[in-house]
Amino acid sequence: MSHNIIVGQSGGPTSVINASLAGVFKTAKELGAGKIYGMRNGIEGLLNEQYIDMTEYLKTDMDVEILKRTPSSFLGSCRFKLPSAQKSPETYSKIIEILRKLNIEHFFYIGGNDSMDTIKQLSAYAKENNITDITFMGVPKTIDNDLAVTDHTPGYGSAAKYIAATLKEIIRDAVVQPIKIVTIVEIMGRNAGWLTAAAALAKGEDCEGVDLIYLPERVFDTDKFIDKLNEIMKTKQQIVVAVSEGVKLADGRYVCELSDSSKAVDSFGHKQLSGTASTLASLVASKIDCKTRPIEFSTIQRCANHISSLTDINEAFIIGGVAVKAAFDGQTGKVGVFNRVSSKPYIMGTSIYDVDAIANVEKKVPDEWIINDGTYVSQEAIDYMKPLIQGEMLPYMVDGLPRHIKL
Amino acid sequence: MSHNIIVGQSGGPTSVINASLAGVFKTAKELGAGKIYGMRNGIEGLLNEQYIDMTEYLKTDMDVEILKRTPSSFLGSCRFKLPSAQKSPETYSKIIEILRKLNIEHFFYIGGNDSMDTIKQLSAYAKENNITDITFMGVPKTIDNDLAVTDHTPGYGSAAKYIAATLKEIIRDAVVQPIKIVTIVEIMGRNAGWLTAAAALAKGEDCEGVDLIYLPERVFDTDKFIDKLNEIMKTKQQIVVAVSEGVKLADGRYVCELSDSSKAVDSFGHKQLSGTASTLASLVASKIDCKTRPIEFSTIQRCANHISSLTDINEAFIIGGVAVKAAFDGQTGKVGVFNRVSSKPYIMGTSIYDVDAIANVEKKVPDEWIINDGTYVSQEAIDYMKPLIQGEMLPYMVDGLPRHIKL
Repeated sequence: MSHNIIVGQSGGPTSVINASLAGVFKTAKELGAGKIYGMRNGIEGLLNEQYIDMTEYLKTDMDVEILKRTPSSFLGSCRFKLPSAQKSPETYSKIIEILRKLNIEHFFYIGGNDSMDTIKQLSAYAKENNITDITFMGVPKTIDNDLAVTDHTPGYGSAAKYIAATLKEIIRDAVVQPIKIVTIVEIMGRNAGWLTAAAALAKGEDCEGVDLIYLPERVFDTDKFIDKLNEIMKTKQQIVVAVSEGVKLADGRYVCELSDSSKAVDSFGHKQLSGTASTLASLVASKIDCKTRPIEFSTIQRCANHISSLTDINEAFIIGGVAVKAAFDGQTGKVGVFNRVSSKPYIMGTSIYDVDAIANVEKKVPDEWIINDGTYVSQEAIDYMKPLIQGEMLPYMVDGLPRHIKL
Repeated sequence: MSHNIIVGQSGGPTSVINASLAGVFKTAKELGAGKIYGMRNGIEGLLNEQYIDMTEYLKTDMDVEILKRTPSSFLGSCRFKLPSAQKSPETYSKIIEILRKLNIEHFFYIGGNDSMDTIKQLSAYAKENNITDITFMGVPKTIDNDLAVTDHTPGYGSAAKYIAATLKEIIRDAVVQPIKIVTIVEIMGRNAGWLTAAAALAKGEDCEGVDLIYLPERVFDTDKFIDKLNEIMKTKQQIVVAVSEGVKLADGRYVCELSDSSKAVDSFGHKQLSGTASTLASLVASKIDCKTRPIEFSTIQRCANHISSLTDINEAFIIGGVAVKAAFDGQTGKVGVFNRVSSKPYIMGTSIYDVDAIANVEKKVPDEWIINDGTYVSQEAIDYMKPLIQGEMLPYMVDGLPRHIKL
């Protein structure tokens, strides 16, 4: 009997989550899979029996290559939290029923923490109920790089490359006028500062780099921040600051709540949610005689496939393949992970690991990598990140723009 | 006697303003210039006798190529408005004195409207005072594309390409969750909608495109906007809107003032300046049951050299050379401009034109190019823009990041 498989994508998209989908698809095909189904909008769509036959959309090897160069989740995504099997056994029996109707042998789920929890629950349910005809495997992805066990997550390298490359360009722009100006760039990462740490990569032979880097792993002190800016301004007119969207004050409030808690209600009576960068720009403008410029990388940092890392795309593809191979070998309840052999030269191994050790665990930037009183990251951090942004894989450019594939 | 020249950059930077600088430098060298000086921070630096010998920084042809791939103004910029010669004759005599001290024969200024005014004033002053040993030439640049006479301005094509390419990526990201969501993208352009019009380029064989485009050339009506969204939402859950930062209400206020005029004062007592996108997102959230996401392209759209248009870079280089050739031929008080011969195929001529006809004139998007009750742009507009974003010239990538050159 041929192996039918189904694959889904879940959570926030990345620039390379489709490369993992391509890796699952192509490896499954090469290993002799039967039907290769894709869930529409993850487990949420599957529960409504929404799925596609992927071979109808990926007809040629070139289609697969375009998929690798298309950002965001080709199959659509969801933010569906699977209820526990105790609470909702009918959800689980329904999933199994749908999978069996399609003769699915292997179930793959590409996602972050919540998605790994889905794999954990499904594989545990299968084990408890003696369901041995279907395996459940996780494929990691998240720009946040906050998954445990794996050295890093696919999606992080490309986001980090976007951040460092764009910061280099912003710094060239920021120093152009002979005036005092503080540019504050807000970077994603609610609880883990991995992405913001990538701001350190901008510094080099041809770039001054950013002056200050604030991660959510450390308490943010507004007074110390202003003191620091004043100190730097003694020798430098233009300052660039990288700050995580998730930085918090000593009292536990997010920095951006300094604005929200004020009378910031717009003329529609709707509460204004200001970003961290604009809140801090406002603070600086009130304390220092200088121009300020807040910049938010927003969702662009997770979908700017046109400046993605070749290393990241290749690894995203491979880890999809690793999950397929392990599943076809009979494994279940596992996740494909990366194991760093060395940074110089960069040697990265892969293996599979128990999903229980990964689901619902959040990996933060190590304390000792945060230096200068919480305003920069160490050389060790830079050595860790640098290999992940190496190499370029450009989109196919058609009529001046990147070519994508969509359902 | 050899021709000594001096060149400056002024106003807001672009991705390709250094390509024009490279064009001036290389053409002057090839035409036998003597010294090639660069003003530090434009006319403001020159008045303080701050200039460099460019050959000390651009030693090889490769240096010139890196310059073409470096965003923002290599020489630094300024926002210095030259006072009139009647008001401040000493400013003019000082400039002439500094230029004569350096034996300058040709003065080049790369910039937008204000910079062309500088050329206009200096050349008029020279004429009135019988100064015949120095010529003054303008080289156009501005992402805003709002200069008169010239078909388009260098810098516009690359910004338009960034906008269209990034919107394609944002659209893929915006449609990923099975929920109602309105994404609002704010694009530069206070009075002219050229950049926002480029959002129309995102639509194509592989992309739904943006749903609505609002230019500052038309009055913005908040009620009609909400009606339009409700109408689209009948058939489509995810909507993407492109809006110019400069859109105004019927009463003349900027849309973003709908927030500013409210009680939006943060806890530092500083007035919050909200953007147009976040103001509109707030409006939508208060009127429609959906998620909203404001995105501001901010300064990134003018410095994202890594996704610049080859056509734009080449034209920016050429128009620098055109100005040099004309100056060496004895012209003064002129600007290099583009004359479109045809769009299909794209044939673009160049010529030089009287600076008086260009300085201080603002070119807007033609009324007939704005269609669908002010919510989109016409095929004519698309045909005009499309050739300007063609081709790629990547930065030299070193260690995973674009290599730049700086002073």
